[in-house]
Amino acid sequence: MLGKIALEECWTIPQALAKNDPGKFVATGTGDRLTRELLDIHDMRIRQMDENGVDFMVLSFVSAGCQGISDPATAEALATLANDKLEEEVMKNPTRFAAFAAVSMHDPGQAAEELTRCITKKKGFVGVLLNDFQSSGPDGNTMLFFDQPEYGPFWKAANDLKAPVYLHPRISSSLIHDQMWKGRPWLDFSALGYADRLNMHILGIITNGVLDRFPDVKLIFGHMGEHIPYDIYRIDHKLDRARFPKMPMRKDKLVQDYFGDQVFITTSGHFSTPALICAMGEIGAQSIMFSIDYPFESIPNACAWWDEHVSVNQHDLVNMGRNNVLKVLPRLTEKPHNLKTMTPAECQVGGLREGQVTYGMYNEDWSRRLVKR
Amino acid sequence: MLGKIALEECWTIPQALAKNDPGKFVATGTGDRLTRELLDIHDMRIRQMDENGVDFMVLSFVSAGCQGISDPATAEALATLANDKLEEEVMKNPTRFAAFAAVSMHDPGQAAEELTRCITKKKGFVGVLLNDFQSSGPDGNTMLFFDQPEYGPFWKAANDLKAPVYLHPRISSSLIHDQMWKGRPWLDFSALGYADRLNMHILGIITNGVLDRFPDVKLIFGHMGEHIPYDIYRIDHKLDRARFPKMPMRKDKLVQDYFGDQVFITTSGHFSTPALICAMGEIGAQSIMFSIDYPFESIPNACAWWDEHVSVNQHDLVNMGRNNVLKVLPRLTEKPHNLKTMTPAECQVGGLREGQVTYGMYNEDWSRRLVKR
Amino acid sequence: MLGKIALEECWTIPQALAKNDPGKFVATGTGDRLTRELLDIHDMRIRQMDENGVDFMVLSFVSAGCQGISDPATAEALATLANDKLEEEVMKNPTRFAAFAAVSMHDPGQAAEELTRCITKKKGFVGVLLNDFQSSGPDGNTMLFFDQPEYGPFWKAANDLKAPVYLHPRISSSLIHDQMWKGRPWLDFSALGYADRLNMHILGIITNGVLDRFPDVKLIFGHMGEHIPYDIYRIDHKLDRARFPKMPMRKDKLVQDYFGDQVFITTSGHFSTPALICAMGEIGAQSIMFSIDYPFESIPNACAWWDEHVSVNQHDLVNMGRNNVLKVLPRLTEKPHNLKTMTPAECQVGGLREGQVTYGMYNEDWSRRLVKR
Amino acid sequence: MLGKIALEECWTIPQALAKNDPGKFVATGTGDRLTRELLDIHDMRIRQMDENGVDFMVLSFVSAGCQGISDPATAEALATLANDKLEEEVMKNPTRFAAFAAVSMHDPGQAAEELTRCITKKKGFVGVLLNDFQSSGPDGNTMLFFDQPEYGPFWKAANDLKAPVYLHPRISSSLIHDQMWKGRPWLDFSALGYADRLNMHILGIITNGVLDRFPDVKLIFGHMGEHIPYDIYRIDHKLDRARFPKMPMRKDKLVQDYFGDQVFITTSGHFSTPALICAMGEIGAQSIMFSIDYPFESIPNACAWWDEHVSVNQHDLVNMGRNNVLKVLPRLTEKPHNLKTMTPAECQVGGLREGQVTYGMYNEDWSRRLVKR
Repeated sequence: MLGKIALEECWTIPQALAKNDPGKFVATGTGDRLTRELLDIHDMRIRQMDENGVDFMVLSFVSAGCQGISDPATAEALATLANDKLEEEVMKNPTRFAAFAAVSMHDPGQAAEELTRCITKKKGFVGVLLNDFQSSGPDGNTMLFFDQPEYGPFWKAANDLKAPVYLHPRISSSLIHDQMWKGRPWLDFSALGYADRLNMHILGIITNGVLDRFPDVKLIFGHMGEHIPYDIYRIDHKLDRARFPKMPMRKDKLVQDYFGDQVFITTSGHFSTPALICAMGEIGAQSIMFSIDYPFESIPNACAWWDEHVSVNQHDLVNMGRNNVLKVLPRLTEKPHNLKTMTPAECQVGGLREGQVTYGMYNEDWSRRLVKR
Repeated sequence: MLGKIALEECWTIPQALAKNDPGKFVATGTGDRLTRELLDIHDMRIRQMDENGVDFMVLSFVSAGCQGISDPATAEALATLANDKLEEEVMKNPTRFAAFAAVSMHDPGQAAEELTRCITKKKGFVGVLLNDFQSSGPDGNTMLFFDQPEYGPFWKAANDLKAPVYLHPRISSSLIHDQMWKGRPWLDFSALGYADRLNMHILGIITNGVLDRFPDVKLIFGHMGEHIPYDIYRIDHKLDRARFPKMPMRKDKLVQDYFGDQVFITTSGHFSTPALICAMGEIGAQSIMFSIDYPFESIPNACAWWDEHVSVNQHDLVNMGRNNVLKVLPRLTEKPHNLKTMTPAECQVGGLREGQVTYGMYNEDWSRRLVKR
Repeated sequence: MLGKIALEECWTIPQALAKNDPGKFVATGTGDRLTRELLDIHDMRIRQMDENGVDFMVLSFVSAGCQGISDPATAEALATLANDKLEEEVMKNPTRFAAFAAVSMHDPGQAAEELTRCITKKKGFVGVLLNDFQSSGPDGNTMLFFDQPEYGPFWKAANDLKAPVYLHPRISSSLIHDQMWKGRPWLDFSALGYADRLNMHILGIITNGVLDRFPDVKLIFGHMGEHIPYDIYRIDHKLDRARFPKMPMRKDKLVQDYFGDQVFITTSGHFSTPALICAMGEIGAQSIMFSIDYPFESIPNACAWWDEHVSVNQHDLVNMGRNNVLKVLPRLTEKPHNLKTMTPAECQVGGLREGQVTYGMYNEDWSRRLVKR
Repeated sequence: MLGKIALEECWTIPQALAKNDPGKFVATGTGDRLTRELLDIHDMRIRQMDENGVDFMVLSFVSAGCQGISDPATAEALATLANDKLEEEVMKNPTRFAAFAAVSMHDPGQAAEELTRCITKKKGFVGVLLNDFQSSGPDGNTMLFFDQPEYGPFWKAANDLKAPVYLHPRISSSLIHDQMWKGRPWLDFSALGYADRLNMHILGIITNGVLDRFPDVKLIFGHMGEHIPYDIYRIDHKLDRARFPKMPMRKDKLVQDYFGDQVFITTSGHFSTPALICAMGEIGAQSIMFSIDYPFESIPNACAWWDEHVSVNQHDLVNMGRNNVLKVLPRLTEKPHNLKTMTPAECQVGGLREGQVTYGMYNEDWSRRLVKR
């Protein structure tokens, strides 16, 4: 499928590597490449985008980013630096790249200001990305969660700016790691712990009524929804209003009611057709957008899955692969990005570009799929 | 779900009963009721619509209608009579009813004229319904199919009037019945034969290029697609262009490419969730609309299925149950019908209308489902 | 997946080519290859089986076979010739091949005798394959259907021999073709007409009570069920016993009740994951078996779909790909075939044969899928 | 469906209520009823079983049970008391009830002894149920996880006794609650926290190699798999063996490979058809068993969902609803329980018990569904 847009695509700056180099934590022998890929935008990344039908990426500062820095001043300075640098990079090629702002979340008012600066003073920003909780306190083990009342100023800014908020996972605090994960550390990361923690934060934001108080706020999260779509029945079923009368969320709504209007997911890092089909059933194609999670995932892997292994009809494929993003992030349709919706034919989804089909929708030796779904 | 719109809903006039009374062919003891239900609009029918959340019905003259009459003059006169009468009935309550025109298809030019008359001179018509092939010839055993070149004038009228064409099944000719179905007559009707014949005619229209020559023509057919969505891969795979170079359909398109743009299905008479899910996968929710097939199906049965047994997300449910129709039949959004799109909340899909959920989304004894999906 | 068994795999003899050479009806330039592939067993065919993880094929005489011959004596002689020849070929490599018997169906008693001869006097036969209806009469336009009472002797033989009956489609009679298909001939074959006719015959056999009278008879048919699984709700819903009191099928059973016990389908020629998932929902993995339809389908295409594009769990994949066949055709577990059930690990489904996964379940450049589902 | 077996069904004893009365934590006005339901077996419970087609329940001591008691001697004494009492109750009606043993997990050797006592000296026990981690330490905030090497004696006993281990969730320790959940306490229980913690423990057991070292151990867990089936691709994809070379699980296996052989889930408390269909796709019907979670769920609610809202074929329905349990817990087929597999017809799934269907598979006014799926 041509024209794909991807939303959970990481990038970093040399200044951040000393404290946070993801290349140090991956398999032996692959770290250097990962570090290079994180630093790059206009070379390897765009070449792979071209080769794999990725029209556009919304870039974000690599996790845990500012959320991983427990000193407020340092975190705030890093956000400013990263945002200024990312604006510069994005504006080199704004019809292929946009940015989510990074913010320190120590001070909700300052976070609101930095988000406002990015959205109103810069040209490349279309929303903001938060890496789960903010590390805080002298030992970095205090976790600040953004579903609490004091974060009103941040959400008000996101609401008034109509800046969608991408919620991204991060590593656990060392205290939680030691209590829960140390006998099975491989589970603490992207295989399980990321989702197990972020889904609490996401549902905290929803059930604490943030989306009700700020009706223009939109949440986006990846990895096929951090387990939530599969359990949406049980979540709504068990948030018994008689049992939990103080839960602030509107009394006439279910969590599932927010999907497709204020809550959206992406496919980043979870390239499973049955999971996608389940999410399409429970929350609807309208709530789902393609993403990759580069460079923690391979661009060709993600795209081969989407283009050749996702057996859904062409309308839903093209909407999830591209068009839905333009509704959720409407700034992308404006200058300097100027993205437009595309039809299945424009995306080369469906159709017979060769004008004949002798062995059905494949060429004879199956080495090339003529029909891309 | 409130606000449902249904499209394959039958009606007849006393003048037609002598020749074509479906009440004679159903189970002993149920025929009289069926006849009464076919003749009724404003009494039993609308009461059941109110009780079951059906906001609107597009009515059509019962099958085989004019297609079952092999004498051209008689067929044409019956079309005129049925259309005039149906306009009169629909205009008694145009915010709840609209009509598909009936036409004799002996003479394509005359069919075009009658369709033009209904759409331009009357207020209640939003499209036209054809009952598979036209019976013709002295013994009624000649079958006229509308995918042939001589039907250009009819399709041109439908195209220029932007009048969608509903393709409805009908009983077989007696000659075909005797050759193929007489040792198993129960299969010749709605269980199998209706679909086995109509899917040939539908695919004949598509593959003979009618939709290419008339790009504003939209086809609609019921019964979850007359077997076609399930086999859409095989149909496209086996319409090998090298083998069939004379097939007129555009060489750069597949049959599946027309769904959602020019081809649509309804759920009439096939209240199966797995089949619906399969169709949603293969052709997309965008291509699917709720319908009942009253009075050959029960309104409460169809609605109980849709409202309580179709386990799909609320956006797709409400779009398939109502909003898609307003895109396919845009005349419904204009005077005198004035239909509007509705949100899930307006349709009472999702949400907690009681303000509390103690036993999950049900009341305690399961006698009432609080969340309608 | 290693160990796959395929059931709808065609073969022919030079003596049959004069009257029935499928190579004449395919795309220009591909007919000679098709003819060669039909005649071959031990060369191109087994090489492709080896290359694509096909452990075993049950071979059958190419359609329309004896059903296409309206002269009884000629049809009977051809059946004998084909069966004798096929036994000879199969016994050259009985751990890789078995056979379905061909029979003339002009005379049910003679058909029973020939089937009995194949099953009891030969070693390679495990069932019988019928190509829809038997052409009969002076002009070949009389269609004999096997759901009629006079075919009792044939079904009794199949029952007593515990010989499953594969029902395969065939071309229409010229009379039916002229009445229904001539304005759209490309639809008369594998894209649509094959299924539209065979599903009538299959449901005729079931609803006329053949499976009730002969409880050891098992039916198998291909192409993902000839449209039946998708419509099984509507078929059962519309076979209204009050309307059709003379329908012979047991009054306490639905058509769907026979699946998995006496009725089974294969995937031959319909390599669509959504259709497979729909069938798994409606009739169950227990009722489904992999097949190809070689040489009308490519072995690599079918196997690439099964091995890499069917996203179902490994138990169902291995059961549908192999183990179910051994329950439906238990002769395959005996001499001279000696097939055994296999585990997912034995089939190399699931698992990590390389001992490490750096880029998830794929190698880095997606050129090889390490996990085969 | 008649003949259903349910596995996650709670019960308690008066002696345990003082410290652990779940009735205190539910909605105002419902606690007394919950307490009464927990104490009851032979009155309200069996009456509801009879009314809703539940043939059999495996009972277990209510969570957190012995795992919630941080004093080893008290926990061990409670286990003995609960097991002795449950044996007594079960043996009053052993063809309708069996038991999972409760064990203190402070001392793995003692746990093994108590399990051995229950399985070998008593008649009603068919396995053991653990409530996530064992609370330990002076303040009860130390969490003991059973995937660690010191629990070998417990797993060896379960292995040698062929006693399946049901893993059930529990409330968090107060320390974890305060750090993570206190700003959103309603999420800490069955809506989310239960699964978010238990899935870590389950995957800890699998990835630490317990199932490899003890190949006769079977794990069962409820709530449609505690999020795991939906994420099984991502879990396996992200447990990168090059990144985590010390992870003890077999290098040639994926987590998904254990499902259906050593790992199984139940539907307790998650009555969602799309989630069930997703699980059937990812781990297979072979890995799934019906359960309720009584009295935290209503028996009629769970059974109405299973009997009328789960639109899967009858073989899978009956296997998941009953027959799979007899393979996973084979002691149930022996004295004194003597359970047998049942066919769909015996379970009244499929079929026409009334002998006629006028309005399809429903009675005319939809007040009664004649076909139970």
